[in-house]
Amino acid sequence: MASPMIQSYEKHMAMDVEAVLHMKEGLGETSYAQNSSLQKKSMEALKKIIMDSALDVYITQSPESFTITDLGCSSGPNALFIVGDIIKTIAGICKMLSKPTPEFSVHLNDLPTNDFNAIFVSFPQFVEDLKIGAEESDRPSVYLAGLPGSFYGRLFPRKSLHFVCSSSSLHWLSEVPLGLFDDRGEPINKGKMYISHTSPPMVATAYFAQFQKDFSLFLRSRSAEVVSGGRMVLAMLGRQTQDHADKRTSFLWELLAQSFAIMVSQEIVKQEKVDAYNVPFYAPSMAEIDDEVSREGSFTIDQIQTFEVDISSGDAEQDGRIISMAIRAIQESMIRHHFGGEIIDTLFQIYTELLTESMGTEAAKSVQICVVLKRR
Amino acid sequence: MASPMIQSYEKHMAMDVEAVLHMKEGLGETSYAQNSSLQKKSMEALKKIIMDSALDVYITQSPESFTITDLGCSSGPNALFIVGDIIKTIAGICKMLSKPTPEFSVHLNDLPTNDFNAIFVSFPQFVEDLKIGAEESDRPSVYLAGLPGSFYGRLFPRKSLHFVCSSSSLHWLSEVPLGLFDDRGEPINKGKMYISHTSPPMVATAYFAQFQKDFSLFLRSRSAEVVSGGRMVLAMLGRQTQDHADKRTSFLWELLAQSFAIMVSQEIVKQEKVDAYNVPFYAPSMAEIDDEVSREGSFTIDQIQTFEVDISSGDAEQDGRIISMAIRAIQESMIRHHFGGEIIDTLFQIYTELLTESMGTEAAKSVQICVVLKRR
Repeated sequence: MASPMIQSYEKHMAMDVEAVLHMKEGLGETSYAQNSSLQKKSMEALKKIIMDSALDVYITQSPESFTITDLGCSSGPNALFIVGDIIKTIAGICKMLSKPTPEFSVHLNDLPTNDFNAIFVSFPQFVEDLKIGAEESDRPSVYLAGLPGSFYGRLFPRKSLHFVCSSSSLHWLSEVPLGLFDDRGEPINKGKMYISHTSPPMVATAYFAQFQKDFSLFLRSRSAEVVSGGRMVLAMLGRQTQDHADKRTSFLWELLAQSFAIMVSQEIVKQEKVDAYNVPFYAPSMAEIDDEVSREGSFTIDQIQTFEVDISSGDAEQDGRIISMAIRAIQESMIRHHFGGEIIDTLFQIYTELLTESMGTEAAKSVQICVVLKRR
Repeated sequence: MASPMIQSYEKHMAMDVEAVLHMKEGLGETSYAQNSSLQKKSMEALKKIIMDSALDVYITQSPESFTITDLGCSSGPNALFIVGDIIKTIAGICKMLSKPTPEFSVHLNDLPTNDFNAIFVSFPQFVEDLKIGAEESDRPSVYLAGLPGSFYGRLFPRKSLHFVCSSSSLHWLSEVPLGLFDDRGEPINKGKMYISHTSPPMVATAYFAQFQKDFSLFLRSRSAEVVSGGRMVLAMLGRQTQDHADKRTSFLWELLAQSFAIMVSQEIVKQEKVDAYNVPFYAPSMAEIDDEVSREGSFTIDQIQTFEVDISSGDAEQDGRIISMAIRAIQESMIRHHFGGEIIDTLFQIYTELLTESMGTEAAKSVQICVVLKRR
């Protein structure tokens, strides 16, 4: 079962504030994140990797129907953005080479609770906007399908996918690791909600084991679905170090834990409740991804790299407010479920203050890993 | 563009009251319509045709991934009902023959305004219920895709469909026929909303021309998409006579027109407004379907037949109320758009009375045509 956190996360992807954890939004035209030239550069690089990989698959395979699959598509206004760019790129090349444009079969996947209706009603306009020339015939044929389900499992018929991309989704685990509770059901990551420097080593072990289990299932599932020579471009939050408690991926969770600690000291929240709360999130390193890909064996790594993403705009107060809103959008339903809804406003007020203070002290960066996999 | 009427119709398919115009609901277990043994018999016959046709395609083609496509799926609780039965039938046969069960790729299509979210959240339970034996391996792999768009046009990649069904959808036209207005924009079907015995001959001509245009586009679109040897089972309201104003298909619209006439006499509605109002509906005859299939040329007719469907339960008051609710569900948004919302309650009060009176006088029947087409 997918966790409530992931569901909440996906429901709220429409928000503009999520540049913090989600590079995807930044791939659009009007992102908050574009204030930062570092982020802009990273996004352009990521977009180029996606376009080049898709084009490479098309040129080597030249199918009559080319499939483009977005895993964890969300329902925001940018859900179809990358897909549109891929179609325009391929259709443009075909026009240049006087080749017939293929049909495009677009698969958008997300959990069943995602708002697919919102994407579907925007689809006719999307197709309209794809016109690349003056004539009706310059409009590529695009067939859209929404596919509800967890990508940690099979979603598509065998050998049906040419190009797959997934952005800002694979850092969400399928569930909170079971290993975060000991044999007697006692929480072992007391006071924290993710891997922290003060967490017992078993915490990182449990998170890492869950990542391995989920990511290998992901690869195995796609292995059946992607055609030989097909590509996947996967972008997710990751680490540049072997340290599981890497500050760049954990500081937002650290500050959230601090906010809860303050509420415990004010007797608004019980310590036991905080001790038992963890997020189903994991930011892997390149080596950890590489290992799983090798172990599964169906894909080769075309390229793998990290991008540093600046999440400070220079205005600490604005940044604090925006990041707090983003994390609230992602975490609210899960926190509400675990702690009850009455603590939410106070919690995020405290969190905003801590974030603003932190952003004023040092520039925050996050790390995205982008890996391109080729089906053998 | 799909008409608002169709959109409204699809939005409300979840209602139990639609047995009147929609046999599909009756294919489920708990339909109002099952009060009638005539209707029950027709439904069982239709269901048998669907199962036999799907099984025949599977047995002759034996693909690794078998696609099942429902055009005009709606979003009611029965949207997945027929699909589930097809899967169970094929999986059962495979088990019996000790053959590996194929993967099933299920395509549900309807207009972009259909509530796909409602179908998608029910999908995990649907898959759970498909278990046909005691073991996990007895659960067939089913991949669900929602495809938003009008079936009067291409929806799927080339040669991608094995079995297509469409129930109670093809009697809706893509739009109100343009020919219902003369060169000066004056309505020619004054006082009526569908072909009536008192309509000028041009009215039937305009409706028939629109049907021909829509149905041939439907066939041409599916021709590209269905594999050779694939089948389509299409069920829709139709006529047993060559008379376009056939009472069985027109009496519900006649009574609606009468209701409007009463409101005109009470000066609640303007005559001009009524004169300009028509429904995008057409009930073809078997010969008319046959002609279009021959003209298009890609499909052969495996079988074609009509079913009489009893829509009287014996309780005229209950029937009047239920039919009125069904037509209101289908027509409300279009009437609201044309006349304004303030007339709705009064209109359907009058309509219910006229229906009750009519149902008390004679047993009402409707006619369904079912045609099975095989792709050459």
